[in-house]
Amino acid sequence: MRSLSTGLSKMRAAAEQPVGIFDSGVGGLSAAYQLERILPAESYVYFGDTARLPYGTRTVEAIRKYSLQDAHFLMSKAVKAILVACGTASSNALGLLSERLDVPVVGVIEGAVDRAYAIAQAGGGKVAILGTAATIKSGAFERALREKDKALRILPRACPMFVPLVENGYTAPDDRVAELIAREYLSDIAAERPDAVILGCTHYPLLSGVIGNILQDSVLVNSSIEAVLRIRDVLHACGLCAPPCAGGADARRMFYVSDDIDGFTENAHRFLGRNIRAELVDIDRY
Amino acid sequence: MRSLSTGLSKMRAAAEQPVGIFDSGVGGLSAAYQLERILPAESYVYFGDTARLPYGTRTVEAIRKYSLQDAHFLMSKAVKAILVACGTASSNALGLLSERLDVPVVGVIEGAVDRAYAIAQAGGGKVAILGTAATIKSGAFERALREKDKALRILPRACPMFVPLVENGYTAPDDRVAELIAREYLSDIAAERPDAVILGCTHYPLLSGVIGNILQDSVLVNSSIEAVLRIRDVLHACGLCAPPCAGGADARRMFYVSDDIDGFTENAHRFLGRNIRAELVDIDRY
Repeated sequence: MRSLSTGLSKMRAAAEQPVGIFDSGVGGLSAAYQLERILPAESYVYFGDTARLPYGTRTVEAIRKYSLQDAHFLMSKAVKAILVACGTASSNALGLLSERLDVPVVGVIEGAVDRAYAIAQAGGGKVAILGTAATIKSGAFERALREKDKALRILPRACPMFVPLVENGYTAPDDRVAELIAREYLSDIAAERPDAVILGCTHYPLLSGVIGNILQDSVLVNSSIEAVLRIRDVLHACGLCAPPCAGGADARRMFYVSDDIDGFTENAHRFLGRNIRAELVDIDRY
Repeated sequence: MRSLSTGLSKMRAAAEQPVGIFDSGVGGLSAAYQLERILPAESYVYFGDTARLPYGTRTVEAIRKYSLQDAHFLMSKAVKAILVACGTASSNALGLLSERLDVPVVGVIEGAVDRAYAIAQAGGGKVAILGTAATIKSGAFERALREKDKALRILPRACPMFVPLVENGYTAPDDRVAELIAREYLSDIAAERPDAVILGCTHYPLLSGVIGNILQDSVLVNSSIEAVLRIRDVLHACGLCAPPCAGGADARRMFYVSDDIDGFTENAHRFLGRNIRAELVDIDRY
């Protein structure tokens, strides 16, 4: 009896621990936003590695080292699971993190690929992937899709101006600058009418309106939503879901960055629609 | 006689040494381009700290540490003078570099400020400063102008989208995207008709056509040109000018980066109009 009760109490304590989320900067806040929306009872700790962003142009060794440090920092905050809300880190460091950490680790690729594949399978078998230059070059989404079905027609497209557009507020569905740039990237893809379009960078959901206007015949797959749904399933399977509370009133959200608190909090408003405070972390210590 | 001849030989050796140029990334190549144009006989060594860019969002301590490392790397290549071709490093580390190094150090602020002041003095006393968010926030150009004349009317303007525009090739004078964004930043400044407009970021000279179309009544001051003219004066004053040679045929140009060679060389083409090769440096060693 005693040992069972201890076990239950340990499990309850773990369920009340926060989820950890990290990204190289603010982009991962689109996953934080979805976590608040889909799992309002969950507390989370967010780390944005603003001192070392962008990860997209780093070597694989650097990305792995940074990702491990980011995860170790989150572990120091007693998180019960980690959401790697960064396409580059998900592509290059997910295996390493899963191996080294004793909590579940979820990236942004698998969930989006599963969903896009399901849509394409029911349709014409065409999937477009939009991402940063580094993500497209890494081929991570493409490889994961090919593993599902070699016959899929895959249309990858690097959209390097989308991150600066989001970070500078050019996100309204009728924004002329965003529309001009998006048309340049997407017109020939639109002509192919893909069944599903993976928004393969955590910044891109903020451009859903602009992108959706151009790719009207496609389903946009938000990799942040899919990653949060996967975290939900994992927490459920491990009995780690936070106890439901009144609309998430007890959920705590903490934000940490390695540099440039002001830039981060200013941009965070675009992602979360509210003001937040962030604390500075010396990430080299982890 | 002997000591004089030894001295002369040392001086000649020094004159044949290259100029060192560093920046956080590719932007400083606009200064390298001007160095080739204005001082074709000079060899140079360029270092782009691509592993740690952008400097604009780093703390002052980080910028100073990085700038010292960058300069130490250049010193290891036996440079005879250093051009700090980065607005952020010029604003925050120039004094430290001048103090620590035994070669002349020139930044991108003084020359541009001198020239803008001369133009404004002959005109209506109005100077606009265009720069990254970090440069404008630092107030470095503004302070240097105020030191010249407290009564100047100064119009500072952060143009955060200009760097991504340049790095993604939106630079043609009739580019619609660049024009829309530039009009947004500059229309109210154009209405004020400043005498001089300082292009306070080494990327911005590539947008001169776009900016000039909007600010037609102003003289654009290219901080890269002004910095190179200052280097020319310093080399001349120190007797360190490279011996003239046939159209710079003997001049050597070497490029080093701390990460992402491909991204750097691809972007370098936009600045220099030719293909270059770059070598990787482990900057943490310096």
